[in-house]
Formats: sequence, structure tokens, C-alpha cells
Amino acid sequence: MKKYDKFLAVPGFKASGIYCGIKKNGPNKDLSIIYSEKKAVSAAVFTTNKVKAAPVIINMEHVKNDNTQAIVINSGNANACTGKKGFEDAEYMIETTAKELNLSSNEVLVASTGIIGVPMPMDKIISGVKEAAEILSYDGFEDAAKGILTTDTSTKTVSIELTIDGRPVVISGMAKGSGMIHPNMATMLGFILTNASIDKKMLNKALRDSVDNSFNMISVDGDTSTNDMVAILANGAANNKTIDSQDKNYMKFKEALDIVSLELSKMIAQDGEGATKLIEACLFGGKTKEDAKLCAKSIITSNLVKSAFFGKDANWGRILCSMGYSGGDFNPESVDISFESKRGKVQIAKDGMGLPFDEVLTKEILSEDYVKVVVDLKDGEYEAKAWGCDLTYDYVKINGDYRT
Amino acid sequence: MKKYDKFLAVPGFKASGIYCGIKKNGPNKDLSIIYSEKKAVSAAVFTTNKVKAAPVIINMEHVKNDNTQAIVINSGNANACTGKKGFEDAEYMIETTAKELNLSSNEVLVASTGIIGVPMPMDKIISGVKEAAEILSYDGFEDAAKGILTTDTSTKTVSIELTIDGRPVVISGMAKGSGMIHPNMATMLGFILTNASIDKKMLNKALRDSVDNSFNMISVDGDTSTNDMVAILANGAANNKTIDSQDKNYMKFKEALDIVSLELSKMIAQDGEGATKLIEACLFGGKTKEDAKLCAKSIITSNLVKSAFFGKDANWGRILCSMGYSGGDFNPESVDISFESKRGKVQIAKDGMGLPFDEVLTKEILSEDYVKVVVDLKDGEYEAKAWGCDLTYDYVKINGDYRT
Repeated sequence: MKKYDKFLAVPGFKASGIYCGIKKNGPNKDLSIIYSEKKAVSAAVFTTNKVKAAPVIINMEHVKNDNTQAIVINSGNANACTGKKGFEDAEYMIETTAKELNLSSNEVLVASTGIIGVPMPMDKIISGVKEAAEILSYDGFEDAAKGILTTDTSTKTVSIELTIDGRPVVISGMAKGSGMIHPNMATMLGFILTNASIDKKMLNKALRDSVDNSFNMISVDGDTSTNDMVAILANGAANNKTIDSQDKNYMKFKEALDIVSLELSKMIAQDGEGATKLIEACLFGGKTKEDAKLCAKSIITSNLVKSAFFGKDANWGRILCSMGYSGGDFNPESVDISFESKRGKVQIAKDGMGLPFDEVLTKEILSEDYVKVVVDLKDGEYEAKAWGCDLTYDYVKINGDYRT
Repeated sequence: MKKYDKFLAVPGFKASGIYCGIKKNGPNKDLSIIYSEKKAVSAAVFTTNKVKAAPVIINMEHVKNDNTQAIVINSGNANACTGKKGFEDAEYMIETTAKELNLSSNEVLVASTGIIGVPMPMDKIISGVKEAAEILSYDGFEDAAKGILTTDTSTKTVSIELTIDGRPVVISGMAKGSGMIHPNMATMLGFILTNASIDKKMLNKALRDSVDNSFNMISVDGDTSTNDMVAILANGAANNKTIDSQDKNYMKFKEALDIVSLELSKMIAQDGEGATKLIEACLFGGKTKEDAKLCAKSIITSNLVKSAFFGKDANWGRILCSMGYSGGDFNPESVDISFESKRGKVQIAKDGMGLPFDEVLTKEILSEDYVKVVVDLKDGEYEAKAWGCDLTYDYVKINGDYRT
């Protein structure tokens, strides 16, 4: 099993990404298509927000289809809160894509991300879809990864090579997401492609379980978006014996998928709007998995904790406080807390109380761009991890005038 | 019924506020005592955080006592996450106060606010308690209101004069709170005094109901603190017929108490750390009270909404989005949204979709320091209001280095 920090082409898939004029500040790419030459099995998870964008609602139906061969994505406009016209626009995007690629409409998924509540510039989008369909290629994935970005500062891609049943398999993923990121699915766009052969039921299970411990455990700002989704397409080109049960091939596939999901999630948290560092909350000793998860999520969601990290301030009291209102059960008087980065590790609280600690070393540890908060609840054997980023002047700046 | 924007002395009560050296940056006052010459009935509500500071846990017992004649409060140190020693310190504060005032320990409440996880400087506090007890006076309330502040930029006081049963009654309140403010009780310190005669059961009911629609409907940063409480003392000096049922005198008392609670709550939201404006979310047309409350709270808690207000950006999509993940039930396609301030009112969304609106006027409306978001769910007859503030560079700055 080998990991690459880029999007390896997956046999049988093509992609493209272009600028069609949706984003004000061109020439940033704003429209992408992902295409499978063969029939492909799909699975997807969607935002839990009650206010769902038109593309999300349509995809929830289309993903039930036995075959999914294309995903068309635009950035710059979320097509959310756009009413009946928004649905018509999303359908029109799908129909145009389907027509260009000789597919049925229900073989196409659609995703939009960007500003909410503004009608889609359909002229630009339709000519963009035609152009993007025309230039699909085996090495268009880097362009596609660019076309889905909004306030992201970089593309987010990762790939795993492995063998299943003696056959070479690739799982490659791209994601976008920088603001409006919060646990509970939603949160961003993620597209994962594989040539593995796996049936729809197992692909669904693998994706859901994987997302629970990765995309659902990150937060940038506590806001669960209207639009977001993670979708996976498996075209079976590897010709391995189709995975149809939780056998050892499934476990191998799932292990690789977990790495892809986790790496993409961490990239999203790290690239949180205005962020200067990635924060990893590692919870140990939970009485239940749920308790550990609630505590971990609450730490990386707290504005006070996030501001303290920006200030390199070892304010462990805020960490304990954020766990206290998380809804997770634990005994405040048995909690140990440490900070850790490549500069070292320092324990700052034991049994719920502060310890004397080396202020200079701790400041150094907190100055790194990847810092872990290690919390031991000493209350059981369950663990959980969550990822977030610091809260900075730039977050406020970026979000103070995103629309205008 | 007459409202004053200051703390009117309440017959039979004395107070004081001094600087005893807890705060690094003297000479800001950091220790206050409130004292009732007569026996007084008390009620209080406390933080729901699982991590409760020692004073909170002790008060939860002491408030059950039939008589409460003093409250001793320090700022600068929260006495939270301080273990067994923290309890001993809180008990020692209480015992010293009781001794100075010839009271029993269980007739005294104690409150602390400030940094978490640092041992209390007990030498300073004990000599401070003695000094503050010595200078108690009928006009010491302004000093007491200063002694409970932390990052607040001003004292928060309000009073109501009314008559009950033909007798002149005063209800006066002081509060502190600027960060770590979030719905769910907790959130701050509030002390309310009255000379009304009311029994413990009705005082409890009045306070709880009042807090639910005021202190529990504000948010600065979503962080529910370890320490906070709202307490009320009623010494009966007005000699009205003791209120012991929900009769018209109770309703009158409750109405006045509601104004005190609400005014203090709005002052806290307005003085939120780094805030430049008070945001009021007015929800109408909810199917249930709970749906309206959840939506209102979610709007004023969302970092994205709060950043948009800082930027005077009419980003109504974020408002709808934040309602969507609130847990409240509503139909996204029937939501109307307007902005309102003393500059005027403009509707920006109808039936879940954007309307064309006057950008210049809207910017003017959003530039005021008190802005209302008026949301009509058109789904029923329940309403709710919640108050918050914008998220600014200064919030991040203040919380990036509070401890150090």
C-alpha cells in the first residue's frame, strides 16, 4: 500500500477543469467534469443541513441508480436557496452533461459550491459544460481539482496504490473546503475514484464508515453547509473478484479508503479559512466511542480554544471547558492534557488540574503548524480524533466580505 | 413601572467593590461584596457545563438555604479546574465573609470569574474580603458592579421601580460577561436585588422563567463557561403581602424582572469581546416555541453570520444556512428575511429566495450598532428572540493572549 500526495490517474477515468466566468476573479477555474468510460458503481453522503442546495437534493436520487458515469461540478455559485429555478438550473447542467457524454441524466451527479442565494449564470455554465466535456482527458485531474475550489489556498488531492486479489488498484481523491466546515457531514466536496470492483452495498458501507471518522471529525467554523457531499465512483476496471462482503479484500480496500478520506479531511482542516495551523485533538480513555468523539469535536470547534492556538497560548482550561459542554460524559477530575508537535511534548494538566510546565518549550510546541492536543479521560478504552484549525484575523477578514 | 440605566440602591442592601491585587493590571477592582441587612430569600441558576468551578458547586447547595444575606465575588481568577484546593479556597472565602458579617457559611454565596486552572491568590483575597466587608455602604453598588468585571469594557446595571400591593418596590441588577458567553445558562455572572417580599418557590420560578428568555438567549462565542450564575436576593423590605402564588402581583414582579434580565443580557451581548454591534434575531411564525428559539440562537451563534455582520455584508444565505443546522423544524421555502435598524428596514429574502434590494440602504442599516434580523418562518404563531454580536479581529486578538 503506497500513498502519493497527488491525484494518480485511475484507469478508465477522465477529467477536466476550466474557467467559464462564474468566479468574478478569473481566470481561476470554476467548472470541472469527472467521467468514467465504463459503467461505475457509486455511493455518496450528503449534508445534514435542513436547507439543502438543489444539486444535493437531486443527487440524493441519482446516486440510487445502478450506474454513475459522470460528475459535473461548478464553483463560485452554490445554487442554494435559489428556489424552483435552482432545481431547473441543476437539472439543465445535468442534462447538458449527459447529452455531451451520451449518458442518461440519472447517470450524472452534480455539485455546486460558492455563494448562496444568487441565481446561477446558466449561459456561462452551459457553454462551460460543453467545453469541459470536449477536453476530458486521462491527465485532467489536476485541472478538475482546481475547478472545484472556492476560498481554498491549494488543491487537495491524495492517492493510494494497493493490490486486491492480485490486481493493481488505485484509490484517488480530491476535495475542496475551507469555510463552512463542521462535523456532521456536509462541510465540503470530496470526489473519490477507484478502479476496484466492489458492489454498491459494500461501497456504500465503506464510504459511510470512512466518512464518520474523517470528514465528519473536522471543523473549521462550526457551520454545516447547505451543499456539500462526498461521492465515490468504482468502475471495476481492476478486474478483481468483486468485493461483495466484509472479507479480507474489503478490509484492505477500506483501509486504503480510510487513508484517502483522512488525508483529504486533514488538508481541509489545515487549509481552513485564515488558518495558520492544523490542530489534532486525540482523545483517549473514553467510556464510550461517542463520549470520546463528542469531546474531540468540541475541542476543535471552540472559538476560545481556536483563538488560544492562534496566540500560541497553552490555555488548557478552555480545552477542559469545551469538553464540559460537549455533551460527552467524563469525569473532569481525572482528565490529563498534553500538547505535542515535532518540537516535543509537554503535559500541562493532570487529574483536571494544572501542572507546572516549561512555558518556553510549550510556546515552541504551539508555534508549529501541526499541533496535537492529547487528552486522556482515564475512564475507559475508547478513542477518537478530530481535526480543526486556529481562529485568526484572516478568518474574520475573509468572511467579513465574501459576498461583496 | 420605570426603568433606570443604573443600579438604584435597594432598601436594606449594601455593597462594596475594591482592588485587592488579583488582576495583574491594577488598579481595576477585583473583589465585591453584596450584603443584605435583613434575612433574604434567594434563587439562582447555574452553568450547565459538566466542568463546574468550585464556587458553582458550593452555591448549588447554599442557595437551598432559607436565608441568603451575602454574595462575595472576585474577578481575575475563576477558581475552576483547581481541584480539592479550589474547594477549600472557595470555602475559606465564604467563611471569612460570614465571619466578618456575623453570618453562617450557608447564608453566603460565592462567585469567581477569570482565568481557569490557576490557584487562587488566597492571601490577597482574604485581606480583600476583610477590607470590602468593612466599607460596605448603601451606595457601594457602582463599585461592586466594577469589581465583577473581566474583559468587559463597561459596567452593566439596570433598575426598575414599580409598586406592588401599594408598596414601592425596586429590582436592580448588575452583570458581567464578555467572552465565553453562550445560551444554556452559564455564560456570565448576574446579581439581582429586590426589596419585594416573595417566597422562595415563586422567586425560583420567576428567575428560571426570566432567564430562559434572556440570559439563555444570548451568545458571544458559543462557549458555555464553567463558572457562571445568575442569583437574585429578595429581602422583603417593601413589606408588600408576600407573593406566594401566580397572582397579579407575581405577574407584575415577573414583568419587571424580565426587563432587568433582558436589559442585562443585551448589554452583555453588546459588550461581547471585540464586538462592534449588537445583533438581535427576531424569529416569527415558528411551528413551536422551541423551533423559533433554536433558529434564533443558531443565527446569532454562527461564525459566518457574525463575520458577515462585521463586514456589513447582507449575506442572508448564511442566515438561512445557520437555521438549517439548528435542529429547529421549518420549511426553507417559506422563509422571509429582513434587516432593520434605526436607518430603516429592507427585505432581502422571500420564500427562501433572494429579492433584489437596495445595496446602499442595506449597508447603511448594517452599519448601525444595533441591527435586527427579522425572520418570518410563516409556519405557525410562535416567536423567539436572541441576541449576539459580530465576530471581529479584536475577538481573536483578545482571546489569542488572554492567559499570557
